[in-house]
Amino acid sequence: MAAPPTRFDDFILSVRQTVTDFDMIRPKDRVLVGVSGGSDSMALVQCLLRLTQEMAFGIGIAHLNHGLRPDDAQRDQAFVKSFSEKHRIEYHTQTADTHAYAAREKRSIEEAGRILRHDFLESVSQTHSYSKIALGHHRDDNAEQVLMNLLRGAGITGLSGIPPIREHGIIRPLIRQSKSDIRSFLDRIDQPFMEDASNQDTRFLRNKIRLQLIPLLRDAYNPEICNTLNRLSDVVRQEDEWANTLTEQIFESLDNLKVEPDQIRFGASPFIKLHDAVKRRIIRHAILKIKRNLKRITLAHVEDVIALAAGGVGGKSLDLPDRIRIFIDKGCLCFKKESVPLRQLNRK
Amino acid sequence: MAAPPTRFDDFILSVRQTVTDFDMIRPKDRVLVGVSGGSDSMALVQCLLRLTQEMAFGIGIAHLNHGLRPDDAQRDQAFVKSFSEKHRIEYHTQTADTHAYAAREKRSIEEAGRILRHDFLESVSQTHSYSKIALGHHRDDNAEQVLMNLLRGAGITGLSGIPPIREHGIIRPLIRQSKSDIRSFLDRIDQPFMEDASNQDTRFLRNKIRLQLIPLLRDAYNPEICNTLNRLSDVVRQEDEWANTLTEQIFESLDNLKVEPDQIRFGASPFIKLHDAVKRRIIRHAILKIKRNLKRITLAHVEDVIALAAGGVGGKSLDLPDRIRIFIDKGCLCFKKESVPLRQLNRK
Repeated sequence: MAAPPTRFDDFILSVRQTVTDFDMIRPKDRVLVGVSGGSDSMALVQCLLRLTQEMAFGIGIAHLNHGLRPDDAQRDQAFVKSFSEKHRIEYHTQTADTHAYAAREKRSIEEAGRILRHDFLESVSQTHSYSKIALGHHRDDNAEQVLMNLLRGAGITGLSGIPPIREHGIIRPLIRQSKSDIRSFLDRIDQPFMEDASNQDTRFLRNKIRLQLIPLLRDAYNPEICNTLNRLSDVVRQEDEWANTLTEQIFESLDNLKVEPDQIRFGASPFIKLHDAVKRRIIRHAILKIKRNLKRITLAHVEDVIALAAGGVGGKSLDLPDRIRIFIDKGCLCFKKESVPLRQLNRK
Repeated sequence: MAAPPTRFDDFILSVRQTVTDFDMIRPKDRVLVGVSGGSDSMALVQCLLRLTQEMAFGIGIAHLNHGLRPDDAQRDQAFVKSFSEKHRIEYHTQTADTHAYAAREKRSIEEAGRILRHDFLESVSQTHSYSKIALGHHRDDNAEQVLMNLLRGAGITGLSGIPPIREHGIIRPLIRQSKSDIRSFLDRIDQPFMEDASNQDTRFLRNKIRLQLIPLLRDAYNPEICNTLNRLSDVVRQEDEWANTLTEQIFESLDNLKVEPDQIRFGASPFIKLHDAVKRRIIRHAILKIKRNLKRITLAHVEDVIALAAGGVGGKSLDLPDRIRIFIDKGCLCFKKESVPLRQLNRK
């Protein structure tokens, strides 16, 4: 006999709508939920837990102890563990040394934490055959991200904010909920959560934006600033998505196109006749294909490649981050991922 | 005998480059320069004056007395007139009653001033056969505009900032110069200018952004904030331009497309299968064609039209600002500019 229809809280209904709209979870998915113990991830796991039966998926919890502020970290870890036990949810945990990693890789603590968390989730997901990773980012996070990218100098993609779904099965079911929606939901279901003291530390850029800049913009310029930034990111994301589809089509039809795993080439002179916006997108697309990501590739690099293509002089070349070399060969613009560091190549 | 080659100041060379890059002025053009008497417009007119011979165009000066703060206004008007006489430049002036206009049209003083100035320049340009209108907007104005549009809730087009050239022959040769470039140029050539007291009035949103928000962002977040915003607006403008070209092509190939001066229709069901970003752009394009501008058309209006098209129920209709009515008729989405106000239509 089928279970009687469950009557959900409005918050859960709204999250379920987001999950459906973006096709985030399918029946039989195994969803690994990243849970810090803070309000966002506790709301996320409570919400998904209530949807498991109706939407026919399973969940597990992953908690990374960052090894920062030991007392708090122990407390958070114990809290998440006991929550998992109480609700009989698969539980995965690990302790990292964020300080050591940051020092070794020359990263900020903020960034090191993000990378370690991501690597941990990926590794648990692979080892334990999860099909999705769910994270607790919400509307206010998205507004902050758009503003942060804008201030740092982002292009179109930066303004599209936090993607609701991403390659490698990362999903963000709370992306349309606000922080205050999340707090009231936790209140209603009487779910406690841990406060993260580092969220108040304005030495971190993101905190400074959340605690100082957004309140200032809200009070002095636009009371609806978070909605405004969220709407902008929606529009920009859809425009970007459309432009990416078109770019792929244009890329595939480039003259003398040759694509190999570590090398891409196409005719330089028809390329330089394309619209500047298209040139930029084609270059980013080609680099993405051989480099697998666009980290450390700036707008200035892209402009340099356009200049190289326009000059069209054989022998001239550009060295980009992560062993990417770009050069002109027999009238073609070539993108190559070198197998040895470019420093050594140059020394030959 | 040809005149000896003129050696220009770096500032003038840079402005000449902007004029060339955007094809702003052609030989035999008659350029009407909007001159308030402030630093930007004085630098603009001095710069263009020096380029008239080499680039073979003529210039005239237009000064609108806004009728605000009478003493200052008289002083500015006399200053611009005497400049015109000294350099033997055609001079056009008029006095407006900005307060009365603002009250009558229910506009802010800022906006009323902008409309009156624009109408005055257009009318002088037509009466005296000018082919271009040059305005003194610069990089810092563009950065402010991008930020202002962002805070107000702009889409892609708002983020592209102040267009260097616009329909009706409006050109902005200083758009790549900074305020400090402009001040040093005026210093070097020893050209005085009038200070506009209203530029310090932070009741005006633009002034508040210039005097408070930009300095705060520069000090606490990004010392290069103006460059960052200018670069963003360049990239967004080119993306927008490309997307507009594509939109026109897609529009022309719409099923059952019928275009009349006051009415546009096309098949609703193939339309709703397009990418959301394309739907938005097609709707804006159709409204622009019959309304001649997109003033007062918001993102919410565009979303309503998409919903109307998706519902596809005959008889349902939407009323948009400026007598624009949108409805479904025989499976077509129809855009119509009504000749009588929609209020009267509805009363029938």
